[in-house]
Amino acid sequence: MATAVYRGRKRVAAPDPGDRGLAYGHGLFETVLVHAHQAVWWPAHWSRLARGAAALGIGMPQREWLEAELGPLLSSAPDNAVLKLILTRGAGGRGYAADPAIEPTLVLSVHAEPPRSNGPLALRWCETRMAIQPALAGLKHLNRLEQVLARAEWRDPAIQEGLMLDTEGRVACATAANVFARIGERWLTPPVDRRGVAGVARAWVLANTPDAAEAELSPADVESAEALFLCNAVRGILPVGCLGARSWAPHPALEDLRRRLGRDEPAFAPGR
Amino acid sequence: MATAVYRGRKRVAAPDPGDRGLAYGHGLFETVLVHAHQAVWWPAHWSRLARGAAALGIGMPQREWLEAELGPLLSSAPDNAVLKLILTRGAGGRGYAADPAIEPTLVLSVHAEPPRSNGPLALRWCETRMAIQPALAGLKHLNRLEQVLARAEWRDPAIQEGLMLDTEGRVACATAANVFARIGERWLTPPVDRRGVAGVARAWVLANTPDAAEAELSPADVESAEALFLCNAVRGILPVGCLGARSWAPHPALEDLRRRLGRDEPAFAPGR
Repeated sequence: MATAVYRGRKRVAAPDPGDRGLAYGHGLFETVLVHAHQAVWWPAHWSRLARGAAALGIGMPQREWLEAELGPLLSSAPDNAVLKLILTRGAGGRGYAADPAIEPTLVLSVHAEPPRSNGPLALRWCETRMAIQPALAGLKHLNRLEQVLARAEWRDPAIQEGLMLDTEGRVACATAANVFARIGERWLTPPVDRRGVAGVARAWVLANTPDAAEAELSPADVESAEALFLCNAVRGILPVGCLGARSWAPHPALEDLRRRLGRDEPAFAPGR
Repeated sequence: MATAVYRGRKRVAAPDPGDRGLAYGHGLFETVLVHAHQAVWWPAHWSRLARGAAALGIGMPQREWLEAELGPLLSSAPDNAVLKLILTRGAGGRGYAADPAIEPTLVLSVHAEPPRSNGPLALRWCETRMAIQPALAGLKHLNRLEQVLARAEWRDPAIQEGLMLDTEGRVACATAANVFARIGERWLTPPVDRRGVAGVARAWVLANTPDAAEAELSPADVESAEALFLCNAVRGILPVGCLGARSWAPHPALEDLRRRLGRDEPAFAPGR
């Protein structure tokens, strides 16, 4: 695993113990699929990072500089890998008010691609709920204890993911993916303006699928859906085979969507 | 500022870039007043840390070992200082499921005591709300973006703190302190089972003041209170002089409470 840590543009050995990313989660991250030494959906990741940085008062790195720094990391990465990027408000001071003088911290690391699952996913419902917080919803920030607690609810390796409700009882997302349900000839996914993350793969589906839309979903909506899939920027579109006792057969609209994603972005071609 | 970082019991140079405290805020902190080289209210801080560690699946350091490590840090600290302790789930892996094999990270740092304010505090109402999240309420965890955003709402140095409402419109706390309001001959403070932090100073007040109790408070309750104070473990009990346009004169019950705190814990003696 290759890792590079920067304070501003200066390469440093490690994060500072007083980094605001560690102290308060005052930062953002992006998890990017690397295929054939290229960062897949990089413009979308960059845009989301910029939106989050504006919301959290963090200066963005200069794009050309960052891309030049990424070059050697990507060219030495395996054919299929994952780039993780963390951007924090930086190190200095103690207390919630950030010192305007401190520079952001950037952590770049390249990891092996996680094992690809064979066939449709097995899901469970999580008991941990996501809080309603419009000020942070949509952002891929570093305050992820809800997902950590939800993921700690099961150890059964036969279960790949868990669906989370929000504290008002509506479906929010999976711990590390967005969710779409096939209901009435449409692909519906919960809005992310009050909780959840505005996923890059989710955005691709909404932009490239005429019958996809945002809608609030109840657990009953999900369980009675014709088909269900999860998506994220590392794994693409993942059909769900079962959720607790409910199971689904492959659905032609879902197979079609996966083929279209694979044509648009070969890194996600089914069977790669 | 003296700092020591440990992986398990092993002293290391710095936090790992893959630490789960940085990646997800998977950790806890304590901010402890150091007076005459002693950690004030240490047993209460230790107990709260242990409660949080159990909730977040983090192993606690062995107490005698930790106290032995603290010894040199405290004895070389200024007469009045602040000890910050961060405990995280440790470094390793990528993804919300923690690798059971990794050891917790501990960061100990000693800081100068913040400047003591002269006289009563000036407060404002914050626009940033605290989310309702019973799974995390009460814990002093590392997911503190709500406080960061609330504290970033003002720069006027004449305003020392901000009061936050929760997303349901009830009073929650200040950005870095609990709040008590004098209403009907009692000191009332919001419960911390759905949001907020179970402050160590707050617990002292509730345990040592017969007329103190938990109660939900509306903004109107606070503004019409006879007196108001904030409290935390570094500053003790801080009378509030004004909140927006509302102002308060010194209140005898509040002066009495501060004297009693100073007798119980000399580090908080008024006028020290």
